[in-house]
Amino acid sequence: MYKLVLIRHGESEWNKENRFTGWTDVDLSEKGVQEAHEAGKQLKEKGFQFKYAYTSYLKRAIKTLDIVLEEMNLLWIPVEKTWRLNEKHYGNLQGLNKKETVEKFGEEQVLIWRRSYSTRPPQLDINDQRHPANDVKYQGISDEAARPSTEALADTIDRILPYWHSDISKKLQECKEVIVAAHGNSLRGIVKYLKNISDEDIINMNIPTGIPYVFEFDDNMNLIKDYYLADPETLKKMMEAVANQGKK
Amino acid sequence: MYKLVLIRHGESEWNKENRFTGWTDVDLSEKGVQEAHEAGKQLKEKGFQFKYAYTSYLKRAIKTLDIVLEEMNLLWIPVEKTWRLNEKHYGNLQGLNKKETVEKFGEEQVLIWRRSYSTRPPQLDINDQRHPANDVKYQGISDEAARPSTEALADTIDRILPYWHSDISKKLQECKEVIVAAHGNSLRGIVKYLKNISDEDIINMNIPTGIPYVFEFDDNMNLIKDYYLADPETLKKMMEAVANQGKK
Repeated sequence: MYKLVLIRHGESEWNKENRFTGWTDVDLSEKGVQEAHEAGKQLKEKGFQFKYAYTSYLKRAIKTLDIVLEEMNLLWIPVEKTWRLNEKHYGNLQGLNKKETVEKFGEEQVLIWRRSYSTRPPQLDINDQRHPANDVKYQGISDEAARPSTEALADTIDRILPYWHSDISKKLQECKEVIVAAHGNSLRGIVKYLKNISDEDIINMNIPTGIPYVFEFDDNMNLIKDYYLADPETLKKMMEAVANQGKK
Repeated sequence: MYKLVLIRHGESEWNKENRFTGWTDVDLSEKGVQEAHEAGKQLKEKGFQFKYAYTSYLKRAIKTLDIVLEEMNLLWIPVEKTWRLNEKHYGNLQGLNKKETVEKFGEEQVLIWRRSYSTRPPQLDINDQRHPANDVKYQGISDEAARPSTEALADTIDRILPYWHSDISKKLQECKEVIVAAHGNSLRGIVKYLKNISDEDIINMNIPTGIPYVFEFDDNMNLIKDYYLADPETLKKMMEAVANQGKK
């Protein structure tokens, strides 16, 4: 049996302020740090023994992973970081408060930008200091997709799936237990693929912060079951909280 | 020009208690955490831009590196962990207080165990729970040197230098700036090689905790100069402190 655990980083400073974050490299909030510790304790208690870990280039995911691994006494395992697991790039919306954006553009438009499969938010200017082309992290990478001006979920998934096939899924077969610490939309891409969710339905699938999401596969890598490591009541509340961020 | 920075982890809980640590996976003390933050700030101020990082399998080194990289906004760079950078294995002395050991075996014998090039401390029994053979970290590694019962400095260097040549030195030529966060004796091995220090003289060379030790190389990888990022007064005090640990 193979076990994959996905974990969305704990609450960040900008989650707290309800701002579009995307590729902005903001830190975890104090609550986010606590969520990560809690997740690590849960995973340890359930006996997970990861042999390999993946995360993005963004510190809120990296730190979530580090805290989880420290709680599990697994800081020594290999960790691979990739821009391909970064959050969806929110273009020019990055930094804006979600409620303000709703007031300005309307709830419907914002929901489309947040959750449409193929509509991109307005572009970030290439000369903007915040553009990935001006960030040392992304400058040495040959694939142009590493320097987006904006992304629809479809774009995010397009850059994640090749990496899923070439790296994560192979490592899972080799190591049996793998953890991926990443972001709401990049994880949504993986879940969409694993559960064969349609472009329409993926819009309404919300992944809560800091809750380990477990996928179990049989020896032929067929998905047997998937579940969150949380009691149903907590889970329901957290998912509603994520869904409500884009409402007035 | 190429720049290599070596950093010995900040003070650990057992440094504080003056106990032989070796491969025991103890945590940083509060002071050790502070030392790591300070080192990160220094390196950032001096404009270092590491492209690659190495550390051991032991959390006091991994956490030191993580704190340094976080201070430098470099958490996203690749980090490679290897048992080859672990501290010297202190065999059966691990866990013993250094002063008590001195009282029991005499200052001379303890100095030999701590600092002789080729004399090994008493062996840790293979059935001891603390033996690396019984630790999941080291079980999958083909090289038997990953499961020592004890080590002399010569043994530690014997397992580090192949990795220096096959990995660190190559990566330095590729990336120009590399950091290695490790331990008193494993770093001593690298310094011995780089500065061509004799088996006798290496005994008296002490590396203080948490102070970045910079090596600059020319385009042909000849060592030009090496220096600590600290004022001379601080440095002198720290080196004396390390040297005095084994005295009554």
